[in-house]
Parts: sequence; C-alpha cells; structure tokens
Amino acid sequence: MPRRNTVLRLSPEEELEMRALEDGWREIEPATARRLLVAGVMAFAAKGYHATTTRDIAERAGLSPGGLYVHFASKEELLYRISLAGTRESLEHVRKAAMAADNTPQARLRAVIESLAVRGARYHTTGRVIEYELGSLDEGHRAEVAALRREIAAIVREILEDGRRQGVFDVPDVEGTTVAVLSLAVDVARWYRTSGRRAPEEIGDLYADLAWRLVRKVP
Amino acid sequence: MPRRNTVLRLSPEEELEMRALEDGWREIEPATARRLLVAGVMAFAAKGYHATTTRDIAERAGLSPGGLYVHFASKEELLYRISLAGTRESLEHVRKAAMAADNTPQARLRAVIESLAVRGARYHTTGRVIEYELGSLDEGHRAEVAALRREIAAIVREILEDGRRQGVFDVPDVEGTTVAVLSLAVDVARWYRTSGRRAPEEIGDLYADLAWRLVRKVP
Repeated sequence: MPRRNTVLRLSPEEELEMRALEDGWREIEPATARRLLVAGVMAFAAKGYHATTTRDIAERAGLSPGGLYVHFASKEELLYRISLAGTRESLEHVRKAAMAADNTPQARLRAVIESLAVRGARYHTTGRVIEYELGSLDEGHRAEVAALRREIAAIVREILEDGRRQGVFDVPDVEGTTVAVLSLAVDVARWYRTSGRRAPEEIGDLYADLAWRLVRKVP
Repeated sequence: MPRRNTVLRLSPEEELEMRALEDGWREIEPATARRLLVAGVMAFAAKGYHATTTRDIAERAGLSPGGLYVHFASKEELLYRISLAGTRESLEHVRKAAMAADNTPQARLRAVIESLAVRGARYHTTGRVIEYELGSLDEGHRAEVAALRREIAAIVREILEDGRRQGVFDVPDVEGTTVAVLSLAVDVARWYRTSGRRAPEEIGDLYADLAWRLVRKVP
C-alpha cells in the first residue's frame, strides 16, 4: 500500500479535490503516473513549483525518492502533463457545452461560461497551479498550452461575433470582451473556497447570467 | 553604487514596473528598504516565494547577502510589507475614486473599477505576487491583508446596494456580483502583458464599461 495518507497532511478541501482529480484523470495509465500528477498538483499548490522537489512529489504519491523518474523525465515534464491534461479537459468541456446548448449565441455563451466556472470551482487547486506556474514551463511546452487556451478563447470570440452578427448581442469590443468573459470564469479558481457558501453549480449559474449581462442588447 | 544593474537581468517590462514601483513607493524610507521591497517583488515573481532566498533579494537590491536583515526581520516580513503596501494603496485609490466621481452609483462604480483595472495593469507583477503568495503569509499578516481587501469589497458592495435602492441597478445577487466585479478587475494583473496592444488607461475604460453592464437596469 502506498504510504501517502501518513505523509500528506492535506486539508479536507484538498482531500476532496485530490479524489475528484483521481477520478477525473482515471483514463491516465498507469495508476502510479496518475497518482504522481495528483501529488504534483498538491505539492506545487503548497509551496510553488520552484521550491518543490521531485522527492516531495514522489513521497506524496507514496513512492521512493526517485520514483517520479520512472514515469516522467523531470519535474517540468510533470507540470507540463498537469497543465496539458487540465487545459485539454477545459477545452473539451467548452466544446461540448457549446454544442449541447441550443444554437443561439445566448445559450452557447451561457453554457460555455457555466462549464468553465463550475470546473474552476471544483478543480480550483489545479486551476491555480496551471495559471500561476505557466511561466515555469519550458518555452515549447508553454506554447503548446497557450495554443489550447487560444482555442478556448476562439470559441468564445466566435459566439460573441455570431451574436453581434445576428443582432442579439451588443459588443462594441469583441477582443476585449472575450478576454473579460474568460477572465471572469478563470478567476473563480483564485477566489473559490470549498468552505464558502456556494456550490460550484450555483457559481456556474451566476456566472452564466453575468456573462450574458456583459453582452446583451439593451432595447 | 549598488551593483544591481549587473545582477538583475530583468525584461524591459519588469524594468518598467520596477521604476514605477520605486516611484510609487518613494515615501517608504530609507531608500534601501524601498529597494528591497522592489527587489522582493521581482524575485518572488521570478521563482515564487518559497524558492527565493533572502540572499537572492539582497543581491537584486545591490546589497551584501545578509543585507535584508538590517531592514526586515525575515523573508516573510518582506512579503508582508509588499502585500500591505500594495493593498493599502489599492484601498486608497478606490476610496478616492469613489469620492471624486459624481455621486451617482453608476459614476462611483465606474471610477472604482477603472482605478483597480488601471493599477492591475500598471503594477501587474506586484499584483500577481500579492495574489499568488497570499497563502505564504503568516496567519496574522494574512488576516491583516484580508481585512484591507474586505474594505475594498465593502465599498463596491455599498455602491451596488445604493444603486439597487435608488432603482438604477438591477443586481439580483449583491454578494456574488461584488465578488465578480472585483474579480474582473483583479484578474487584469494575471493576463496583462506590457507587450499587449492596450495601455492601462484603455483597459480601465473598457472595464468601467463592463462593470456598468453587469449591473445596469434594462428597461
């Protein structure tokens, strides 16, 4: 048995997210690599990427000090895999949300922002690590993650442009409003606390409404 | 002469903010303490609080390895002074903005959000350090910074309540909207790049407009 439970000293909040992450990443094989990714999120969140050693991460995952290197070439590769997995999932969720909604720009915008805000709350520790440590990635890896983020932004921009074209949105500044709408959803990960009064789904509802207010056409 | 220019290797973007910070903090005396605060911002931004040594900071400020301890008891005290200075200034700016604007809730909200967004862009490195390292502060220090942040939030909340009372705002969820409006402005520090196309003042204008859209009453 891995000895992680004796080593971790996680808050109940982190325990919760760790379990959610392990579940969300269940397709990542082998299980030890998955456990290392989750341990990496928690370790980076606790003291930042640069102050975390591969030994810290291995210990959290219940492995021997060098155990990380069986699955990842370096600490940077682990951060890259975390960033890639998290950003890819966000992109997939955003795509699905945009397609599942009825085909009005309003419904698509609401669904996309709701999806991002709910994920931002539910996986707030992961979200913070990905945002705060973007600058710690190697240039090539950073560019790859940035490209996925641009795909998410492109979906939002297209919805805003559609809404404008159809005369249902009033968006004088599509570029700036795209950044702002995404910013609103991304920032949920920063301020969200599990101990707060709102469930992720309630935050999703509120943010879908706020996004709509930012763009709606006023008679 | 301090030898910092040979040690720093700052990007032009960081150089710019460093000079703005030194100017903005010119009331902090002696000048060496001020230089250490600025060096701390740059060092924490470069590799995170936990991986930064007091020696790194002293070197960036052009001092001997132990030079920080003449002015600050610890690395944590330096981070606390940075967080306190930055948050106090934000609060002062927000107060002034709210008072200078004409006395309608709309004008006050615009002025407050414009002020926060402009500062978020202009001092984005400082803003990131304060946000990302909040958890690295000792409990008492964190509580002190949090209390200042609650004062900023209270000003925004009061404006929203006034607007609602006067029948000029439509804000079904004052608490959630206060968080969201502040979040929009705070998050500018995360995404802002000096190399981007917009000046801080343009971002301030756009964000004042977006904040207004979030609360305006639709006929």
